[in-house]
Amino acid sequence: MKITKDLYQGSLALLTDFYQLTMAYGYWKSGKAEQEAVFNLFFRKHPFQSGFTLAAGLEYVIDFCKNFHFDEEDLAFLLEMKNSDGSPTFEPSFIAYLKEMEFKCSIEAVEEGTVVFPHIPMVKVTGPLIQCQLLETPLLNIVNFQTLIATKAARISFAAQGDPVMEFGLRRAQGIDGALAASRASYIGGCASTSNVLAGKLFGIPVSGTHAHSWIMSFDSELEAFKAYADAFPDKCVFLVDTYDTISGIKNAIEVGKFLREKGKEWVGVRIDSGDLAYYSNIAREMMDEAGFPDAKVVASNDLDEHIITSLKIQEASIDIWGVGTKLVTAFDQPALGAVYKLSAIKTKEGTWEPKVKVSQQSIKINIPGNHQVVRFSKNGKAVADMIYLNSQNLDRDEFIIIDPIDPTKRKKIKAKGLDQEVLLKPIFEKGKKVYSMPDIHQVKANAARNLSQFDKALKRLVNPHIYPVGLEESLYQLRNDLVFKMKNYDGEENNI
Amino acid sequence: MKITKDLYQGSLALLTDFYQLTMAYGYWKSGKAEQEAVFNLFFRKHPFQSGFTLAAGLEYVIDFCKNFHFDEEDLAFLLEMKNSDGSPTFEPSFIAYLKEMEFKCSIEAVEEGTVVFPHIPMVKVTGPLIQCQLLETPLLNIVNFQTLIATKAARISFAAQGDPVMEFGLRRAQGIDGALAASRASYIGGCASTSNVLAGKLFGIPVSGTHAHSWIMSFDSELEAFKAYADAFPDKCVFLVDTYDTISGIKNAIEVGKFLREKGKEWVGVRIDSGDLAYYSNIAREMMDEAGFPDAKVVASNDLDEHIITSLKIQEASIDIWGVGTKLVTAFDQPALGAVYKLSAIKTKEGTWEPKVKVSQQSIKINIPGNHQVVRFSKNGKAVADMIYLNSQNLDRDEFIIIDPIDPTKRKKIKAKGLDQEVLLKPIFEKGKKVYSMPDIHQVKANAARNLSQFDKALKRLVNPHIYPVGLEESLYQLRNDLVFKMKNYDGEENNI
Repeated sequence: MKITKDLYQGSLALLTDFYQLTMAYGYWKSGKAEQEAVFNLFFRKHPFQSGFTLAAGLEYVIDFCKNFHFDEEDLAFLLEMKNSDGSPTFEPSFIAYLKEMEFKCSIEAVEEGTVVFPHIPMVKVTGPLIQCQLLETPLLNIVNFQTLIATKAARISFAAQGDPVMEFGLRRAQGIDGALAASRASYIGGCASTSNVLAGKLFGIPVSGTHAHSWIMSFDSELEAFKAYADAFPDKCVFLVDTYDTISGIKNAIEVGKFLREKGKEWVGVRIDSGDLAYYSNIAREMMDEAGFPDAKVVASNDLDEHIITSLKIQEASIDIWGVGTKLVTAFDQPALGAVYKLSAIKTKEGTWEPKVKVSQQSIKINIPGNHQVVRFSKNGKAVADMIYLNSQNLDRDEFIIIDPIDPTKRKKIKAKGLDQEVLLKPIFEKGKKVYSMPDIHQVKANAARNLSQFDKALKRLVNPHIYPVGLEESLYQLRNDLVFKMKNYDGEENNI
Repeated sequence: MKITKDLYQGSLALLTDFYQLTMAYGYWKSGKAEQEAVFNLFFRKHPFQSGFTLAAGLEYVIDFCKNFHFDEEDLAFLLEMKNSDGSPTFEPSFIAYLKEMEFKCSIEAVEEGTVVFPHIPMVKVTGPLIQCQLLETPLLNIVNFQTLIATKAARISFAAQGDPVMEFGLRRAQGIDGALAASRASYIGGCASTSNVLAGKLFGIPVSGTHAHSWIMSFDSELEAFKAYADAFPDKCVFLVDTYDTISGIKNAIEVGKFLREKGKEWVGVRIDSGDLAYYSNIAREMMDEAGFPDAKVVASNDLDEHIITSLKIQEASIDIWGVGTKLVTAFDQPALGAVYKLSAIKTKEGTWEPKVKVSQQSIKINIPGNHQVVRFSKNGKAVADMIYLNSQNLDRDEFIIIDPIDPTKRKKIKAKGLDQEVLLKPIFEKGKKVYSMPDIHQVKANAARNLSQFDKALKRLVNPHIYPVGLEESLYQLRNDLVFKMKNYDGEENNI
């Protein structure tokens, strides 16, 4: 499926920060445009104080890269851009260069549904400096958001302890694609369905939904409204019972449920969308049981998230199906993942790779130089540690030492014998050619579930989760330290007191 | 401009909650599809504990409605939907009905850039029940998000006290359109420019940007990188100085600034993107002043929002231009506006309008019944109160009483003589035909500024703002009360102890 092509006409090449284009122009002017570079996309902190993050967005990334080109409209727009003095921003021959540009990068990435951790490269782009640079903003936009939502959906699904979670955030989502991409990522992360019909059509996600308060209000009485709904959908009746009075609503729902049963149909149950969900769900349960409907379900909604669901579970609310909207699709308590995309190596004129580091006063902002790969060690199907290493290194060793990239006192020795190894960065594009076969969304969802099952439940605890060990292989750690010290001394006024 | 058409191929009719379609089917089956109804879109609480909200999104709404239709692909998708027992969800004759559907609603709305308050209808849709219902979700999606971001941008702009604010949130925005719509709303709310080139192209917003750390890192030294940038863009050099060491960076920037001056060019200044912005901006100011560049600017960025900008202002940081990203485009501290869309009246078979109310245990969730208009009273260009009233009422009176919809002890008498009146809901569509001429985005931005200037600055205070009086005209208040009591008594178990 061509996601962005299906959604958007024309090219998305201008979906980027203007400074990517000014830098592109600068690289081109300086004769550096085609110099080979390596960039890594990674985040520095789990969202939501989570113990894990679930990677998503790769399908969009693939689609974006496959269709990457500047079309005539884009080029015309750039050609007309002016500096403050009225002179053109870009030379016409640069525009001609962009016109001929073909996507030539190699991309390695973790698959969608992979559990990832801070500092692990999720996407690694190797190719002409100018192309790597132009991809920065759209790749971040896509991966940041979908990863954020997939992670939130996984947390909410854990809280629901196996109950189905329906996503219905479209009305509060951040824009049209903010909704569509959220529906997709929510499904990957664990939701059973979406209310967003277009997401159902585009992505093949199951859609679900019943009726709103306005349905009830458009009839003379609630009972009449329920009956009319049962006429239209005898097989999937969930009655929203809180338009006027929740208890009367449950009574009316049961009455129509009996009427359906006489016709050989079973209703699904009731939905409660306001008020005290613990209290009313238990009343609904009791009333439906007494009336002979022990299989009728209680669906609950109203600003739910993983914490409120957990609280309702602890209170033994009789809720069978959870409807989650705003808090999921906007990742309400942390609406952005801060993944970044950093240059980590560049090929010199002599043809050797030179590792690159950005120094910062904020240690967490220092990137990891070099060209990397990541290996996940596991034992009996349980992941035990991840190691980031220079891809020139050989994994065929008995022992590794991994060192935390922020706190060097945290290090672990890994006795590799008896451990399984899985290399996480898979080839997606090779010099512009797609070499990866994208699984369908149901396979991605299954991959996420399989990935999550490899980690101890302590990692999935909502609050104060276990910290999974991820480190730099010793020689990579050393390389990074050496480069940082070199850069800090290099003309480093701030180190001179 | 056709925004959604420009952005999205095909129809967006399926960009809705599935329950809108099941209700549509139910209305159609019950013979109610063409019954006339009135729905209001409004919110119940300002976002960000703000004292005001800035309406945005109307241009998208207009575009959505103008292009509203089910295309062949949509219809085929709906035709293939199945119930759990394998039977089709919708009858073929309903699909045929959808195929013939033409947009026939009348829409009144507040113009983009209007300051609005809780309970004020921002969009009022009148028309066939089925069409009003199908519009609910997309209208909420559009208006909720763009209004949220325009409001956030206005708050950030107030904090910046007239300094230019550049929006560059694309990389952390929620999806592709989450970025584009945010750039648009940010500009309306007060930002001077966006980094998003596609937003610049689609909406005509000024774009801005310079270079990233990767630019510096791709060269052998920072000085060389600055020089190469100055070669490419002699007129718009902002040098990012914190790649290795901020003070060395400022020195290097000044050196290239001098070099440019020799060639008759002036650089713009430096950008600081990490570390202590108050401390380093003052050092940069001092160093640039001493070096003979009193007009060179300091641009600052790094997770800024209205509160951090305020704090930096109080600390007398020497920052001239503010770059704001994540916290703005995701509305980080409250990433969703909770606007809702409620049925407020329906035409009976006898042809009279019957006001409708949804009762709730949460008083704030009780809607305002009837067919409304809103008037803003002002004196000498300063707004003094807003009144929601039944549009059958005459405004030609000397005195009005307005009553707070939540707290009836809050009421005000308005002596209308000497006050100016502006009716806020303007006609946008009449029976499907567009009657409103959409201003361009610069006019919308100017309208927002003019609107904001009508309100006292106490309302724009970031924390504990003044509360502007908005109320229901007395007879509307009475109508609502009567209906609520009627509905609550109606079979109301919960009122019987």
